[in-house]
Amino acid sequence: MNLSVSKATLGRIPQYLAYLKTVKDKKTISATFIAKALSFGEVQVRKDLSAACGNGKPKVGYITKDLISCLEDYVNVKTDCPAVIVGAGKLGLALYGYKGFSLYGIQIVALFDKNTQVVSEHSSSKNIYDVSEFDLFCYRNDIKVGIIAVPETEAQKVCDMMVKNNITAIWSFAPIDLKVPKSVAYKREDLALSLAHLTTLRQD
Amino acid sequence: MNLSVSKATLGRIPQYLAYLKTVKDKKTISATFIAKALSFGEVQVRKDLSAACGNGKPKVGYITKDLISCLEDYVNVKTDCPAVIVGAGKLGLALYGYKGFSLYGIQIVALFDKNTQVVSEHSSSKNIYDVSEFDLFCYRNDIKVGIIAVPETEAQKVCDMMVKNNITAIWSFAPIDLKVPKSVAYKREDLALSLAHLTTLRQD
Repeated sequence: MNLSVSKATLGRIPQYLAYLKTVKDKKTISATFIAKALSFGEVQVRKDLSAACGNGKPKVGYITKDLISCLEDYVNVKTDCPAVIVGAGKLGLALYGYKGFSLYGIQIVALFDKNTQVVSEHSSSKNIYDVSEFDLFCYRNDIKVGIIAVPETEAQKVCDMMVKNNITAIWSFAPIDLKVPKSVAYKREDLALSLAHLTTLRQD
Repeated sequence: MNLSVSKATLGRIPQYLAYLKTVKDKKTISATFIAKALSFGEVQVRKDLSAACGNGKPKVGYITKDLISCLEDYVNVKTDCPAVIVGAGKLGLALYGYKGFSLYGIQIVALFDKNTQVVSEHSSSKNIYDVSEFDLFCYRNDIKVGIIAVPETEAQKVCDMMVKNNITAIWSFAPIDLKVPKSVAYKREDLALSLAHLTTLRQD
């Protein structure tokens, strides 16, 4: 099994899984069959499945239930780890409530803020904590993924705090480039750039 | 001037502009000089500037103030158009309050929702309207860019409404693929996939 998978392939795995579950009574299934059902290119499907689960048998394909559990394992092994958000502003709260993450086995387990009023406004049952509890929480829950949703001026400080607590993947919405050790996977999510680029593609 | 520009190039233009404004008293400036100052690759800077503003003069480079106005025009011409959001949930409100868009000359001018309670909770001075006013607003303000921040079940309906109102660029946060005419620039922003992919890159 490959250790890395392209973002495009990863993005299609939930779609394969959703489809395969509708035909799970079929004993075997081929890449060709799946490609037709989903209107995907056959070569693409073949590549995706082989990257995640190895090649199917010639003329037979995959045993459907094995393929389902392989793809499930693949997504889970790769992504199953609790994540935390720092910053309980509008964006932090929106991300905290975003349902799509579970599709990839990602669980956002807590939200931190330094504003005690924000923290106390939301009941503790919602797992919103004061940032002073961050270190202990990460240690106890073996947190490996951190999401930064604080203003630009706070972002590097929060990032350093995450690195210090052994977080190995940092996803930042702050509109600056953060300094992150090479051993940490880091992505700046630049929403403004995404929209700006889309806007340049329109034909008015 | 090229009509299309890569997302990567577009993303660097605000950085060039920020830097150039700090040295605007310098009469001329070369790509090499800019590359060093920003720790960018020289080839990259040369390519970016030439895509947006043509080539500099050999051994001289660009006239600094001309380069600034050219890059500003470039970003503005490409992106200067009012955008609207449909869906005033947490994500819609977060996007509405996001400050980074102005960096690219994008202005979010209004937010629509069908929930009259949400609409009335926020004062009309904030430009939050009932969705029944969408058609007229788009017509009066020549809206070309629409952002979808409604739940999955509503997204296609909202998308169709945008297309009907001559919106030519649609940016959707709903976790489904929408059907959009080929003449409309469309991007599904899949936040869950972005985080999932980042998560796969970590080395624990």
